[in-house]
Amino acid sequence: MEAGLPTFGDIESSQRRLRGRAVTTPLVYSPEVERRIGVRTLLKVETMQRTGTFKFRGACAFISRIPEAERGAGVVAYSSGNHAQGVAAAARLFGIPATIVMPDDAPSVKLDRTKALGAEVVTYDRRRESREEIGEALAGERGAILIPPYDHPGTIAGQGTVGLEIARQCEAEGEAPDAVLVPCGGGGLTAGIALALERLVPAARVWTVEPAGFDDHARSFREGRRLANDPTPPPSMCDALLAPTPGEITFQITRRLVAGGLVVADDEVRSAMRFAFEHLKLVLEPGGAVALAALLSGRLPIASGIVVAVLSGGNVAPGLFAEVIAD
Amino acid sequence: MEAGLPTFGDIESSQRRLRGRAVTTPLVYSPEVERRIGVRTLLKVETMQRTGTFKFRGACAFISRIPEAERGAGVVAYSSGNHAQGVAAAARLFGIPATIVMPDDAPSVKLDRTKALGAEVVTYDRRRESREEIGEALAGERGAILIPPYDHPGTIAGQGTVGLEIARQCEAEGEAPDAVLVPCGGGGLTAGIALALERLVPAARVWTVEPAGFDDHARSFREGRRLANDPTPPPSMCDALLAPTPGEITFQITRRLVAGGLVVADDEVRSAMRFAFEHLKLVLEPGGAVALAALLSGRLPIASGIVVAVLSGGNVAPGLFAEVIAD
Repeated sequence: MEAGLPTFGDIESSQRRLRGRAVTTPLVYSPEVERRIGVRTLLKVETMQRTGTFKFRGACAFISRIPEAERGAGVVAYSSGNHAQGVAAAARLFGIPATIVMPDDAPSVKLDRTKALGAEVVTYDRRRESREEIGEALAGERGAILIPPYDHPGTIAGQGTVGLEIARQCEAEGEAPDAVLVPCGGGGLTAGIALALERLVPAARVWTVEPAGFDDHARSFREGRRLANDPTPPPSMCDALLAPTPGEITFQITRRLVAGGLVVADDEVRSAMRFAFEHLKLVLEPGGAVALAALLSGRLPIASGIVVAVLSGGNVAPGLFAEVIAD
Repeated sequence: MEAGLPTFGDIESSQRRLRGRAVTTPLVYSPEVERRIGVRTLLKVETMQRTGTFKFRGACAFISRIPEAERGAGVVAYSSGNHAQGVAAAARLFGIPATIVMPDDAPSVKLDRTKALGAEVVTYDRRRESREEIGEALAGERGAILIPPYDHPGTIAGQGTVGLEIARQCEAEGEAPDAVLVPCGGGGLTAGIALALERLVPAARVWTVEPAGFDDHARSFREGRRLANDPTPPPSMCDALLAPTPGEITFQITRRLVAGGLVVADDEVRSAMRFAFEHLKLVLEPGGAVALAALLSGRLPIASGIVVAVLSGGNVAPGLFAEVIAD
């Protein structure tokens, strides 16, 4: 698997590796979303995953594939926060050390949580230093293994278990999704879900959802090639979705399997977070709310059928959350 | 059913009546709770029910049993807020009018939500007027049917569908709960769950959880008879659980089937709400958090096995929620 693209079989084997380790997160019907948009909506509540995001799946599947004899020196990751926590929690579960390279302006809730999970945190300046270089240098020094946040077949296969669960949970209820909306940063989650659904629900159309100013996937799909975001983009509250460009590996999958890219503005994200608080009783972080935001603001061109929105993360600082729900 | 006690068959028929109307709420494993208390824990996320609490089930099952010819004049209910919303939402679903008698000091989020659901709200002074009398007078005037919040076999049978789902969801995962903790006000939810589990998981021990100062069930179980709370109790933040005494009908069921009553303090409730925000990404109202609070504060005498905690409600004002998570 290392050399090429991940396969459906890799996702299935990831699912076996995650058994007893990851949470099978619920897929829940929301009458209130349906009432608003007129389309039957199921929510994949991945916020209830360990560490509050899907990132634990990729990290855990990745580590489980490292031969036991090579795990001892531990793992290294670079991340704005959610991948950091996923790797830290997975490393703790396997009893190996984790070192995480995080931007010094990451939300403090994410820095603190990563440390609380037992990882060593090394910070860097996002504007002047390269996290990739720091991560690779650390891994080299320590003989540790680097876990890429999205552009690796092992990571993608792990995230793809979200798609496997969506397909099987829908099937158990006798429902077949027509559209699946996925919050998108580097594209690892989208690629994994699209691969799983290609096999299990081929008629389902997968859409990425990105924050305004970071719509590299939406534009890349239209152009048919990987485009980068403006290097000095406007600010976005979606700190989990700020990857500069689609991944090389992820884009080989998503360009083939994704129907298109939707884009939402910060105020739509805020509304979706408030809606989730009021009506779903769920805590969403900005980046985890973009798929719901796209639905509620009518961005998806669909008038009937069944829609699945992935709620991908819930790691939001109490202060920001309080501000958003008070609006 | 009207005259006597509800039966397991009444719960099964309620389940059929709720199909396509109520949400089958998820039962989710929480590794983080297990890590804290050392016991495998499943959470029944009833906060994702319509209107954010289990109350919709009882109201919907109740209305569905009213012969169609008698429904036209509508329904009346008295409630501090959650039963109000449940009845209002269920009445809207059946296209009939609802009048709700609510205390004038109920959380404004609950008053507003009830009105937004299309119900007429009549307020009263909790310290000087009797909601039962006002409710009955209104029902008499209008020819409407009163839906009691807990002490009625129809209401209890509806709430019992929570127990049916717990049993079946556990069975689907090959798990059998040893203990089930239920937030308790008048005892309708507890009675329904206990009845369902008596048949489906007879070995499971059901516990009520009440807020300090409103431990009428805990004391009544010990004495073997219905005791009231102090008429001038200390304040409690659990506005949903302030019933003055166990229901007559509910207590006939709970005294026989419940293992005992646990009691939690307001600061333990706050901690549980904060824990749910941080680690579960769930919004709980104070009364909906008491079962989780009992678990996290070590009140349940259990060292192994499988525990289910019912998260029964999530209707909390943004201001209070912000204050609690900022602590």
